[in-house]
Amino acid sequence: MTGVLSPVVTPFAADLLPDPDRFLRHCKWLLAHGCAGLAVFGTNSEANSLSVEERMQLLEALIAGGVPPSRLMPGTGCSALPDSVRLTAHAAKLGCAGVLMLPPFYYKGVSDDGLYRSYSEIVQRVGDSRLRVYLYHIPHVSGVPISVGLIARLLAAFPDTIAGIKDSSNDWNNTRQLLDAFRERGFAVFAGSETFLLQNLRAGGVGCITAGANVNPHGIDAVYRNWQTAKAEELQAAADAVRGALQSVPMIPALKAVIAHYAQDPCWETVRPPFTGLSSSQHDDLLDKLRALDFTMPDIRA
Amino acid sequence: MTGVLSPVVTPFAADLLPDPDRFLRHCKWLLAHGCAGLAVFGTNSEANSLSVEERMQLLEALIAGGVPPSRLMPGTGCSALPDSVRLTAHAAKLGCAGVLMLPPFYYKGVSDDGLYRSYSEIVQRVGDSRLRVYLYHIPHVSGVPISVGLIARLLAAFPDTIAGIKDSSNDWNNTRQLLDAFRERGFAVFAGSETFLLQNLRAGGVGCITAGANVNPHGIDAVYRNWQTAKAEELQAAADAVRGALQSVPMIPALKAVIAHYAQDPCWETVRPPFTGLSSSQHDDLLDKLRALDFTMPDIRA
Repeated sequence: MTGVLSPVVTPFAADLLPDPDRFLRHCKWLLAHGCAGLAVFGTNSEANSLSVEERMQLLEALIAGGVPPSRLMPGTGCSALPDSVRLTAHAAKLGCAGVLMLPPFYYKGVSDDGLYRSYSEIVQRVGDSRLRVYLYHIPHVSGVPISVGLIARLLAAFPDTIAGIKDSSNDWNNTRQLLDAFRERGFAVFAGSETFLLQNLRAGGVGCITAGANVNPHGIDAVYRNWQTAKAEELQAAADAVRGALQSVPMIPALKAVIAHYAQDPCWETVRPPFTGLSSSQHDDLLDKLRALDFTMPDIRA
Repeated sequence: MTGVLSPVVTPFAADLLPDPDRFLRHCKWLLAHGCAGLAVFGTNSEANSLSVEERMQLLEALIAGGVPPSRLMPGTGCSALPDSVRLTAHAAKLGCAGVLMLPPFYYKGVSDDGLYRSYSEIVQRVGDSRLRVYLYHIPHVSGVPISVGLIARLLAAFPDTIAGIKDSSNDWNNTRQLLDAFRERGFAVFAGSETFLLQNLRAGGVGCITAGANVNPHGIDAVYRNWQTAKAEELQAAADAVRGALQSVPMIPALKAVIAHYAQDPCWETVRPPFTGLSSSQHDDLLDKLRALDFTMPDIRA
């Protein structure tokens, strides 16, 4: 799995229940417009606002609807061990290309021994040779960093299973350190934002898994496809400009508002608590900024 | 509900499955030795390492085993809205005196509007007039503080349901502010550690919900029962000394090691990942410190 992956936003009906039809439609649009894969149930998917059963049902709906499991990297790391085991086993059984696994994130200040024990228990309890685990480092949200030392121990113990990492630290020095330490062992390093895509590819990384790919998969994939060409910097700058507009307001309601607008489908604006929708001034500012960039979402209208 | 409550530690078998029999036995010991109530499924219960189903089964086992629901305040706040609704409805239906509710804790930097929306959805979806919600403020672990402004809004909207708070900020100024703002409206303020018990009672608080009550309910209850007597300071100092020993090492494995030792039941030492047991030097240091205090757990042996 290489290239641009989207942590797909999860649509909700007015009663806040997940909407599998809109979810499937958006996943298919993403695959048709530049995404190599779908990191469903990531942070920007509001995955941690979904129950285990809701995640399993949505994943099954995608596959039943024709999304190839080989394009799927669902998030399966939960606070509770049995939840992580259940989701990971389910994803592996369905043939997903990999899983993106948060560390258990409620308890803070836990030791690397404890985190090793957590990942190790999950891998062993799932016991599926097809399982490929991508670690998910996003310390400003999870509160639980994944250290270089922990990765080295996991790779030594489970070399066929520990496949890579999404580095959402927003710290290029950390990404660089991961590449230096593990690149040559086939460990796949994804940047956690398109902002670092070109840098990551030049340093031996394999792509990015980024919120922005929900609305700009074509623009980000253009960087990926052209990174060794003379156009690379210009394409990166264009992707950065869209990212800049999106992150001028809270990201999750921003992504949903942009899809709602370009798809002419206001249902997309619904977010689960603890999030709220954009204010009308945030909404208008965001769309003005995107218009100024001649931003489009081709063929998004239902 | 007033006095000393214990966030009861959860025993696990060697395969890491919860052990309802030991759980029931410890709950009964706590009620017989000074605990007014049981805040099962709190932070120190490793509750966020348990699935929703495991929590529901353990709660049912306690009630089936003779623990009166009027003494129970289970933790029911999860990251995902449907999980919080399910656990809260279950606890209310079983007649629990209250629930202790974390805010949704994965996403950080969310607004008070979003947190209000979260609590409001849970209260309305549960729709049970018997429900009593105690808010759970533990920002150094949850990463999501509960502000005075949020409490005021919740009290205005749900005056019969929002019953109080556990303040685990370890910041007396915050507890004092909560007492000043809400004490006169019958809002119950529990200190989150026995360290603040005497201060809290003198300022109008109702008790404490504290990890230390798992092993020292008698010592902490002595402060509660005697807070207006000449012995109060001395009793508080004695409780503080035990607390000091416990928190000289990681708290959850410490509590379990102490129970295992005094109950002569090594099974109690098992913790779920991301925790690990105490090292043998931590274990020995802790027990030495407690012995030096003439600490005991009366009648704990099975």
